Amino acid sequence: MKVNLKRANNAFHFEAKGSNGTIINMDASPAIGGEDKGPSPMEVLLMSLAGCASVDAIMILEKQRQKLEDYSVDVEGEREGEQVKPYKKINMHFTLKGDLDEKKVNKALDLSVNKYCSVSESLDKNIKITYSFDIVK
Amino acid sequence: MKVNLKRANNAFHFEAKGSNGTIINMDASPAIGGEDKGPSPMEVLLMSLAGCASVDAIMILEKQRQKLEDYSVDVEGEREGEQVKPYKKINMHFTLKGDLDEKKVNKALDLSVNKYCSVSESLDKNIKITYSFDIVK
Repeated sequence: MKVNLKRANNAFHFEAKGSNGTIINMDASPAIGGEDKGPSPMEVLLMSLAGCASVDAIMILEKQRQKLEDYSVDVEGEREGEQVKPYKKINMHFTLKGDLDEKKVNKALDLSVNKYCSVSESLDKNIKITYSFDIVK
Repeated sequence: MKVNLKRANNAFHFEAKGSNGTIINMDASPAIGGEDKGPSPMEVLLMSLAGCASVDAIMILEKQRQKLEDYSVDVEGEREGEQVKPYKKINMHFTLKGDLDEKKVNKALDLSVNKYCSVSESLDKNIKITYSFDIVK
């Protein structure tokens, strides 16, 4: 896989582009001289994890013939360290809407978070990755 | 850090939002039922790594009083596996424009990739992360 990232101003605003040409913006926070023109790289890491788990979760739910009316994930990452602050814990809270079977949802999320997600498998094994969920009828 | 990701169509197009409210799009490739409305989650992981290393690299170059006229990074990730395909190798090729001191550039990139980057420190220690660079006068 190949991506390109280029500087979009004289500070820390970057435009990143993958194989399909769509641009995503990233920036640093104003606290360190950024202009908040996009999420920070550490936020983008959480987005990548949530996106990966979501593709897998939705595929599994479809195979289980669960009719998903709406879907979102809130991700929270806790960082620790002094000079460098990697993630130590990440929780993904899934909110799924529809007439869904709770056991099947749990199975789908468990498989997507703990087994099939290539982003999760690319992360440091010391990061504790957990999930929780709500079903909204 | 908190981010939210929600489904933006009935397939795999997701909109992700961090603390500043800017939305980034992600999607799966058409090969697995996506519509290519954004980079894939595994591409976004590489973008996050490049963004993080770039913030640090630019900060260090500024401290070294190196005048950077332009800057970009090409990232290539190699994946391995069968059902799950995490990254095994990632190379970042930096292209820096300006009247720059090669040794200082190398030092800045080494520190940013191997020491200060929180995204890099959040990745699996088995991933071989390397860098290379060109200076364009």
